[in-house]
Amino acid sequence: MSKLLMFEKPVGMRDTLPHIYETKRKLKEAAEREMRSWGYRFIETPALEYHETIGEASAILDRQLFKLLDQQGNTLVLRPDMTTPIARVAASKLLKERVPLRLAYSANVYRAQQREGGRAAEFEQIGIEMIGDQTVSADAEIIALLASILKKTGIERFRISLGHIRFTDELFRQILGTEERAEHLRRFLYEKNYVGYREHVKSLALSSIDQQRLLRFLDLSGELSCLEGAANLIEGGAGSEAIAELRNLYERLQEYGVAEYIKFDLPLVSHMSYYTGLVFEVYVDGAGTPVGNGGRYDQLLEKFGRPASATGFGLRVDVLLSALEQLAEEEKVHCILFSNERRLEAIQEAKKRREAGEAVLLQDVAGVEDVDRFTESCKSVSFFVGKAASGREF
Amino acid sequence: MSKLLMFEKPVGMRDTLPHIYETKRKLKEAAEREMRSWGYRFIETPALEYHETIGEASAILDRQLFKLLDQQGNTLVLRPDMTTPIARVAASKLLKERVPLRLAYSANVYRAQQREGGRAAEFEQIGIEMIGDQTVSADAEIIALLASILKKTGIERFRISLGHIRFTDELFRQILGTEERAEHLRRFLYEKNYVGYREHVKSLALSSIDQQRLLRFLDLSGELSCLEGAANLIEGGAGSEAIAELRNLYERLQEYGVAEYIKFDLPLVSHMSYYTGLVFEVYVDGAGTPVGNGGRYDQLLEKFGRPASATGFGLRVDVLLSALEQLAEEEKVHCILFSNERRLEAIQEAKKRREAGEAVLLQDVAGVEDVDRFTESCKSVSFFVGKAASGREF
Repeated sequence: MSKLLMFEKPVGMRDTLPHIYETKRKLKEAAEREMRSWGYRFIETPALEYHETIGEASAILDRQLFKLLDQQGNTLVLRPDMTTPIARVAASKLLKERVPLRLAYSANVYRAQQREGGRAAEFEQIGIEMIGDQTVSADAEIIALLASILKKTGIERFRISLGHIRFTDELFRQILGTEERAEHLRRFLYEKNYVGYREHVKSLALSSIDQQRLLRFLDLSGELSCLEGAANLIEGGAGSEAIAELRNLYERLQEYGVAEYIKFDLPLVSHMSYYTGLVFEVYVDGAGTPVGNGGRYDQLLEKFGRPASATGFGLRVDVLLSALEQLAEEEKVHCILFSNERRLEAIQEAKKRREAGEAVLLQDVAGVEDVDRFTESCKSVSFFVGKAASGREF
Repeated sequence: MSKLLMFEKPVGMRDTLPHIYETKRKLKEAAEREMRSWGYRFIETPALEYHETIGEASAILDRQLFKLLDQQGNTLVLRPDMTTPIARVAASKLLKERVPLRLAYSANVYRAQQREGGRAAEFEQIGIEMIGDQTVSADAEIIALLASILKKTGIERFRISLGHIRFTDELFRQILGTEERAEHLRRFLYEKNYVGYREHVKSLALSSIDQQRLLRFLDLSGELSCLEGAANLIEGGAGSEAIAELRNLYERLQEYGVAEYIKFDLPLVSHMSYYTGLVFEVYVDGAGTPVGNGGRYDQLLEKFGRPASATGFGLRVDVLLSALEQLAEEEKVHCILFSNERRLEAIQEAKKRREAGEAVLLQDVAGVEDVDRFTESCKSVSFFVGKAASGREF
C-alpha cells in the first residue's frame, strides 16, 4: 500500500484507544443501567438500511448520507440516526406486543462530513424512544430520565432547553401566511443565525407590529417567566395550547425534582423535520455542541404504516466524554513474568489470582525485549524465573 | 415509500429485539470481563476504512467487501475484519508504548452476501490480538483464554482444532514443487471439499508414494497421537519444526488445564491468507459453523511498516448465542400506573424504588389504551389512581 494512506482513516473516522475506551465503557454502563431501571428495553438495528426505507424518512440531509449499492442494485445507507430504524422495528413488530413501548439503544450513527474539522462522521448515540403515549407525562418522563442519566454519569452541570414546534409554526403562520416564507425564516433559527434572522425580518413587507412580534420572539428564552411573553405574542389556538403544554410539562418536571435544569428557548427549532411538538436540546458545561436533543414526533410511525405518537431523545457519547471533568484511571494489572523452568507454577498462580477476582497478566520473559519498560505498565510484578522455589513480588 | 420495502432490511441485515439483546449483553459482558482479567485492553476502530489500507490487507475476498466512495473520491470499505484495523492502530500508535501488546475488541464486521440464506452480512465479533510476542507461550495463552471465555459464557461442550500452516506448506512444497499447484490443492482444504481434494490428488502426475502421502495427510486429525503420523509424513525442516511446536503447545495447554478441549486437524487451512503458523478453529455443540478461529500472523504488521509477530482469535457472537442452551429470561419490571390526581405520589414511589435498586416503570393510565394487556408485561403492578390514599399492589 502507499505510504500516504498507510496509517490514515477516512474523514471524520476515529480510533478509540484503551484509556478512552474504559472511560466510555463506564459512562455507557451507567447510562444504560439507568435506562433499564426506568423500564426501557434495548434493541439493535443493522448499520445498513435501504435508502428508500430509512434514508428518506430520517430527515438527515441527503448529502450527509453514506450511500452504497448492494449486489442487487439497491441503494443502501449507513443509518444516519436511530429514531427512524426504531420506528421501522416498532411498526413492523413490537407495537403488536405492548403499548406504550419503551425502547433504548446504544449505537453508532453515520453522517458524511465534507472535510476534516474535528467533526465526527461516525459517532455513538445512546438514547430512548417512547412510542404510543400521547400524554405530557411521557414527555416529562423522558426529560426526567435524561436528567437522571446525566447525573448518574457524573455530569452535574447541564441545562435542558425546551421549545415547541407548534408554537413557532402558529406564530409564523399568523404573521407570514405561507409555509414557504415560514420555512425560510425557520432555516435561520436552526442555523442559530440570529443576525440573519433579524435582517430577513426587517426586509419583509410586514406591519411594524408584526415585525416587532417576530423580533421579540427571538428573546423568548430563559426562565419560566418567558412563557408569559410568549402567550402575549400569539392569539389563541395552537400557539396557546403549546404554551399551556409547556407549563404543564414544567409542573411535572418540578415534581420529578429536575426543574433546576430546565430552561425555555422558544426559538429552538430542530434540523430533524419529523418533530411535531415539544423539542429540546441539552447542553453540558465544557462542551460547545449540544450533548443531546429530542422531542415529540407523532407522525413518523405512520410512514411505516402504523400511526402512533412518540417522544424520545438521543445523547452523543463523544460530547458526553468531552464534558467529563476527568477520564477514568486506566486500571493497571498485576503481572507475572515467568521463564520456562517455572512455567507451571506461574500458570497456577495466575489462575488462582484470577479465580479470586484479580486481573492478572501472565508473560513469558522470552517474549519481552525490554523487561523494565514492560513492567512499568504493571500495577505490581511477580517473577517466576530461574530455579528459585517461590515467586518474588515487587 | 413503497409498500414493498417498507419493513425490509438489506440482504444479511438483522434486528436484535429486546429478549435476544439481553441474552447477548450478558454473554458479551462475561466474555469481556474474562478478557480484561487476563490483562487485555479494549480498543475501537472506525466502521469505515480506506480500501487501500484495510481492504487490501484484510484477506477477505474483494466481492465480499462493502465498498463506497467518500466525498473526496476515495474508495472506502466497511471493515470486513478487526485484525487488520488493529494491526494499523498497533503499528501507528500502540507499539511505541509497550510490547507485547494485549488488545481486545467487540465490534461488528461486514461481509456482503450474494443472497439471503441465513448468512449474516453484519455480524459481531469479540476477540483478542497479542502483538509482539513470538513465543509458543503467547499461542498457549490465547487458546487457554479462549477456552476460559467459552466456559464463562456458559458453554461447556466445545472443541478447538489445531493445525499449522507451515506443516501444510512444507508438505505441499516437498511433493508438489510449485506454489501454484499447492494453492490449487489448498483451496479444496479451506472449502473442506475432501472429495474434490482426493480426486485432484489422483489426477496429479505424482509417484504413488507421494499420492499416498497427500491422501494420508487428510487423515491427520484427532488426538495427540496423530502428530506421530504427521512426523512420519514429512522429512525434516519446517514441517518437523511445526510438529514440534504443536507438541510444545499441547504440553502448555495441559498445564493450563484445557487439553480436554483440544483436537488436532492438520489439514486445517484458513481462508485468511495472513496466517503464518498455528491456525485453529473452534466448534461448539449445537452450531454447525465454527464459533471462532484464529492463529499466528507474523507478517501482517510489517504491511503497516512495523514488523512484529502476532497471534489472536475472533469469536462470532451470533454463533455463540445460537449455541446457548437457553436464552436469558427477559427481566420483567414492577409497573406503577397513575392517574393525574396521584401523579406526585406515583413519581415519588418510583423514585424511592429506583434508588433502592429496583427497576420500575412509571405509566400514566391516560397513555394506555388497553390496561389489562399492558400490565401483562409487568412483574407486578401498583395503581395510584383516583382519590384513594395509598397505592394498591397486585
